[in-house]
Amino acid sequence: MSKMADEKVMGAPASGGGGEDAGELSPAEARVRPLETLLRAAPLGLCVAAMAVMLRDTQTNEYGTVSYSDLGGFKYLVYANGLCAAYSLVSAFYTAVPRPATLSRSWIVFLLDQVFTYLILAAGAASAELLYLAYNGDKEVTWSEACGVFGGFCRQAKTSVAITFGSVLCYIVLSLISSYRLFSAYDAPVPSHGNKGVEIAAFPR
Amino acid sequence: MSKMADEKVMGAPASGGGGEDAGELSPAEARVRPLETLLRAAPLGLCVAAMAVMLRDTQTNEYGTVSYSDLGGFKYLVYANGLCAAYSLVSAFYTAVPRPATLSRSWIVFLLDQVFTYLILAAGAASAELLYLAYNGDKEVTWSEACGVFGGFCRQAKTSVAITFGSVLCYIVLSLISSYRLFSAYDAPVPSHGNKGVEIAAFPR
Repeated sequence: MSKMADEKVMGAPASGGGGEDAGELSPAEARVRPLETLLRAAPLGLCVAAMAVMLRDTQTNEYGTVSYSDLGGFKYLVYANGLCAAYSLVSAFYTAVPRPATLSRSWIVFLLDQVFTYLILAAGAASAELLYLAYNGDKEVTWSEACGVFGGFCRQAKTSVAITFGSVLCYIVLSLISSYRLFSAYDAPVPSHGNKGVEIAAFPR
Repeated sequence: MSKMADEKVMGAPASGGGGEDAGELSPAEARVRPLETLLRAAPLGLCVAAMAVMLRDTQTNEYGTVSYSDLGGFKYLVYANGLCAAYSLVSAFYTAVPRPATLSRSWIVFLLDQVFTYLILAAGAASAELLYLAYNGDKEVTWSEACGVFGGFCRQAKTSVAITFGSVLCYIVLSLISSYRLFSAYDAPVPSHGNKGVEIAAFPR
């Protein structure tokens, strides 16, 4: 696309001023950073909570015992929440320390944010489908309503899935922030040679 | 974040040159546009194919009849594919016509791309979970392996889900393109007053 300034320190022109504080950030950046750190720390709590609720989700009654590990979708939810909790921990620490954003760092954070957003959303969607089946069953394929028998198990699983969707929301906002940070470092595509943009400028809407 | 030039025509400086062709695009933009149009048209075909395969997915044998509409997750897949096909059609036409990108247009395309990416990914994940259950069943909650009896139905559903994941990939790339287009119009956050960025510039990595 447009040419990229490789490894350029974003938001730090080479001709600086005083020169005492290397970690000095722009006012806009200073306002966004605590918010971003908070947003990165929030999924840590949410993912750990969702994981803990799901891991302890076992019910035994006269019909038998059911545990989260009996259902593939819930196991995937636990793994996804574990991975996201680890990523949140690392990235919250990373964001908390003020440091100039380089292009390569922004790319790494951006790509990881994208991957984890899709990962946790897919886990949440699969688990929600599983929960829907557990509550409603499916007569045509002779699947029973498991929640009629294992009500407590289903309620706890529902809590875990709901918490997971909370962290999905955090991750969606985080991907927006990291894509803003990455792509705002690039120039908008500018007509370079043979620029005939007068009519464009004449109709700005 | 940084200040935004509202309704600014991106990539078209106000002081233009010749002034014959209003739709003149930058070389980078001209290279990306056919690729983007293709990427926007591809999910149209994929979504229609996935929808058609799923809609005709019915099997009758001595055990009874099973149809996609008996399974909530597959119905959601059909709806999601239908919505995405409609969006792809509109956005492919929109992209095919060369026009200067304004900030508000970029925001709309960006937000819609995000919404549809998450929508189709969630539908794909939920259907994949459903398919997994249909193939493997779940002894603990007494769900039978429906695919042992309705093999043809499951194979056709698997095809539809696989095609859906093809369009998920297209949408992920499209979200990247539209977020690049949107956020590259913004300036990188620049230290504005009391700039003390000399050390930053001295350690560019």
